[in-house]
Amino acid sequence: MQEINNYVETHKQRFLDELFELIRIPSISSLPEHKPDMYRAAEKWKEILLAAGADKAEVYETDGNPVTYGEKIIDPKAPTVMVYAHMDVMPVDPVGLWKTDPFEPVVKEGKIWARGADDDKGQGFMHAKAFEYLVKSEKLNCNVKFLIEGEEEVGSPSLPKFCKKHKKMLQADVILVSDTSMIAPDVPSITTGLRGLAYWQVEVTGPDKDLHSGLFGGAVANPINVLAKMIAQVTDDNGRILIPGFYDDVVEVSRKERNMMAKAPFSLEEYKKSLDVKEVFGEKGYTTNERTGIRPTFDVCGIWGGYTGEGAKTVLPSRAYAKISTRLVPNQDHNKIAKLFVKFFESIAPKSVKVKVEYLHGGPSYVCPIDLPAYKAAAKAYTEVYGKTPIPVRSGGSIPIIATFEEVLGIKSVLMGFGLGSDAIHSPNENYPLEQFYNGIRTIPLFYRYFAEEMGR
Amino acid sequence: MQEINNYVETHKQRFLDELFELIRIPSISSLPEHKPDMYRAAEKWKEILLAAGADKAEVYETDGNPVTYGEKIIDPKAPTVMVYAHMDVMPVDPVGLWKTDPFEPVVKEGKIWARGADDDKGQGFMHAKAFEYLVKSEKLNCNVKFLIEGEEEVGSPSLPKFCKKHKKMLQADVILVSDTSMIAPDVPSITTGLRGLAYWQVEVTGPDKDLHSGLFGGAVANPINVLAKMIAQVTDDNGRILIPGFYDDVVEVSRKERNMMAKAPFSLEEYKKSLDVKEVFGEKGYTTNERTGIRPTFDVCGIWGGYTGEGAKTVLPSRAYAKISTRLVPNQDHNKIAKLFVKFFESIAPKSVKVKVEYLHGGPSYVCPIDLPAYKAAAKAYTEVYGKTPIPVRSGGSIPIIATFEEVLGIKSVLMGFGLGSDAIHSPNENYPLEQFYNGIRTIPLFYRYFAEEMGR
Repeated sequence: MQEINNYVETHKQRFLDELFELIRIPSISSLPEHKPDMYRAAEKWKEILLAAGADKAEVYETDGNPVTYGEKIIDPKAPTVMVYAHMDVMPVDPVGLWKTDPFEPVVKEGKIWARGADDDKGQGFMHAKAFEYLVKSEKLNCNVKFLIEGEEEVGSPSLPKFCKKHKKMLQADVILVSDTSMIAPDVPSITTGLRGLAYWQVEVTGPDKDLHSGLFGGAVANPINVLAKMIAQVTDDNGRILIPGFYDDVVEVSRKERNMMAKAPFSLEEYKKSLDVKEVFGEKGYTTNERTGIRPTFDVCGIWGGYTGEGAKTVLPSRAYAKISTRLVPNQDHNKIAKLFVKFFESIAPKSVKVKVEYLHGGPSYVCPIDLPAYKAAAKAYTEVYGKTPIPVRSGGSIPIIATFEEVLGIKSVLMGFGLGSDAIHSPNENYPLEQFYNGIRTIPLFYRYFAEEMGR
Repeated sequence: MQEINNYVETHKQRFLDELFELIRIPSISSLPEHKPDMYRAAEKWKEILLAAGADKAEVYETDGNPVTYGEKIIDPKAPTVMVYAHMDVMPVDPVGLWKTDPFEPVVKEGKIWARGADDDKGQGFMHAKAFEYLVKSEKLNCNVKFLIEGEEEVGSPSLPKFCKKHKKMLQADVILVSDTSMIAPDVPSITTGLRGLAYWQVEVTGPDKDLHSGLFGGAVANPINVLAKMIAQVTDDNGRILIPGFYDDVVEVSRKERNMMAKAPFSLEEYKKSLDVKEVFGEKGYTTNERTGIRPTFDVCGIWGGYTGEGAKTVLPSRAYAKISTRLVPNQDHNKIAKLFVKFFESIAPKSVKVKVEYLHGGPSYVCPIDLPAYKAAAKAYTEVYGKTPIPVRSGGSIPIIATFEEVLGIKSVLMGFGLGSDAIHSPNENYPLEQFYNGIRTIPLFYRYFAEEMGR
C-alpha cells in the first residue's frame, strides 16, 4: 500500500497531464464528423499502453470505430486479467450549459471537469497507470490484456464481431471494468447488476408537407398531437409500461434481496434536493433505488417536430420524431422487447398518420455473483483502500457489451467503478474527483494481488 | 376591362421585376436577426407607393417593426379605400425542403416560387399596380390609403397602438385586404370569416439538469414523457378540446348556413390525395370544411427536448418544450381562452415537474356581412373577371388585425384574396400562379369603380 501511495504522490501531475491529452480528443462516437477523432483516440491509447509497459499494442479496424488492443504476458500459466474500457464519449449538447470547454479539462474544487473526465477516459486511464506501477515495481503477477473500444456510447455495435474474430487473443480469466459508480466517497460499492437497453427512433408523418395551421388545422391529423398521444399510451400514470408482454420475463427480486438493497445509505430528501424536484416519480410499490436497480423503464430521450425557433410560428407540421429507450432487467431479452415495442407502437397509430419505428440498438442485462473469485479480490482491494467492505449494488445503467463478453467469450466481468453519482456523466459539466481518480490507481494493483491469490498463485 | 387587360399585358414583365425586388428582401418578422430587413422592406414599399402615384408615403416607427403608410387624396368628399397588406414573411425552415432559394424568386410552371410570393408580397403588390393603373389612366374615383405593416406573421403586436395613435390619418370607408385564398382558379370566392388565434409556449422542467437515463430513469419524472401525457389530455380521440369552458362561447352555425357552405365544390378524395393521407382527422359531426371553417382547433406547432441529433444518445432530459396554438371561431374571446388554457395546463401538471406557460400572442375572429356595399362591389368585380359570382367562404386562417381594425378604427374589411390552397404559404416551396397575380391586378380596379357606385358617386 505504502509503495503505491508513494508512486501516485510522485507522479500525480504527470498522470493528469497524460489523461488530459486523451480528454482533449473530442471522440464523440455518435457524431460521424468525429470519425477522425476516434482514430486519434485509438492511436493515443496505443501510445499510453506501450508507455505503461505493454509488450505490444495495436489499433484494429472493425466494422465501425477502431479498437485498441495491448497486452503483457508474463507467464502463460499465470491468471489473465483483461481490462475493458472505452475511448469514446457522449455528445456535449447543450453546450451552453457547460461552465468550461468540455474538451479542455480543468482542475477546480478538487475535480477534473471535462467530457470523459469520468466516463470513461478518467476511469479507463486509471488502469493504464496501475499497470504502469505494477510493471515498474516488478510486482505484476498476472497476464494483462487491454481492450479499449470506441463505440460504447452507441451500444458497441462492432465489438461482438471483433470478439468472435479474436476469441483466442481475448482469452482471460476475468474482465475488469471501471465504468460505473460507487455510492459515495466514503461508501464503496461494486456494481453486481446492469440493466439492459433497447432504443428506437420513431417518425410520425401526417400530411406530406408542412401546412398552414389555420387553413388545415382541425381537419388533418397533426403528427405532434398524434405522437404525444401515442407516447402517452405507452405508460400508465405511475410509469408502468403498457406494452403487452413487456413484463412477461421480468423475474421479481426476492424480498430478502430487496431488504439487503435497502441497507444502502439513501436519503430521499437529499436525492430530491440534488435534482431540484418536489416529488420523485416511478412505478408504484417500489423504492427509488429499486426503480432504477431492479425495474425496467420507459424514457423518451428526445423529441422534435414543427417550429422550434423563437417566437410564434403557426404551422401544422408534416412530421414529428422521438428517440425512445427502455432499460431492461435480467431475463428480459432486448431483441424480444424490440419487437414488442414496434408491434405495440404501430398498433396504436391512428390511420390518419404513417408511423415508422426504427430499432437503433440494444443490449442484454448482466449479473455478477458475489462469490466469484474476482469479485472477492475486488472487495478486498476496496476494503484496504477505503477501510470499508464495499456494498454489492445493482445499477440502473447499461453496458451492453458486458453481457456480450459473457455470451461470446465466456468471461465474467467485475465492475470496479470509482465514479460518483455527482459526476454528471452524459450531462454538461461532467467531472471526476481527483481523490477517486487517485484512489482508483491505488486500488487496482491490490485487485491484481488478491486475484492471483484467489486463483492459487 | 379591355383597357386594364392591355395595361397588364404591356407591363407584365416590369410588374414581376418590381415584385421580385421586394421578395428578395428576407423580411422574416419572427427572427430578430432580420430586423434590418424589415426596414429595407419598409423603404422598398415607400418607393413602390410613390412610384405608383401616391401623393406621399412615409415609413413610421412603431414599438416593433416599421409601418409604411402612403396615400392619394383626390377629393375629401370621395369614398376612401384603405389597402392593408403586410411586408413580413414566415421563416423558411426546413430550408432543405425548398427546391429553389426561398428569397430568389423564379418563374416556373406558370408560377412564382419564393417565400412571400403569395403571402403577402405577391398579393399586396397587386394593389400597388392596380393603383398605378388607376392613376395613370386617370380613372381613380376614390381616395386611396395604403397601410403596410411588418408584424402580421407574429400577430401584429404593434399595429393596434399605431392605429390608435393615427386614427385620423387612417379614416376610411372600407379596408381592402388580399391575404386570403379563393377556392380554385375557376371557382372565385371571398372570405367572409376568419378564425381567431391563441398561441402559447410551454416549458416542462423535471430534474434541474440532464441525467443519465440508466442511473435515474424510472425514478425521476422525464419531462418529455410528462409533456406528451399533458398534450394528450388536451383533446379527446376525435380532436375535441377538453379544456373546461373552451366551447362555452362558440355559437353553433345554423343548419341553413352549413348547407350553403356545403355547396362549395370539394372532393375529399382529392383533398386526401393532395396531402398524401389515408384518412382525415377531426371533430366528430363536422365535415372537413366545417372543421376548418366554423370549429375551433388545437394544434401543437412545435415540440422539442432532449437529444435530437443522429444516433442513439440515452438521456433523461431536464426540460421539454412545445409551441401550442388554438384557432378560435367568432364569439370566442382569445384573452379568455388564453387564461383557460393556462389554468387547465397547469392543473394537469404532476407534482414531479415544474410547468411554465407563456401566452405568446392571440387575436379575435372576424365576420364580414355579405350585404356590405364593399362586399357587393368586390363580388361584382370578381364576377366580371372570372365570369362567376364568388362564393362567400369562412376561412380557417387568422388575420388578428382585421378584428382590431373594426374595434379600434370602426372600419369593416373586405378580404379579396387571390391565393390558392396549393400556394404552400408558410411552407417550403411557397408559390403564386402568375394568372392569379395578373387577375388580381385586373380585378382590383373594378372594385374601386363599383365601390364608388355603391357609395353613390
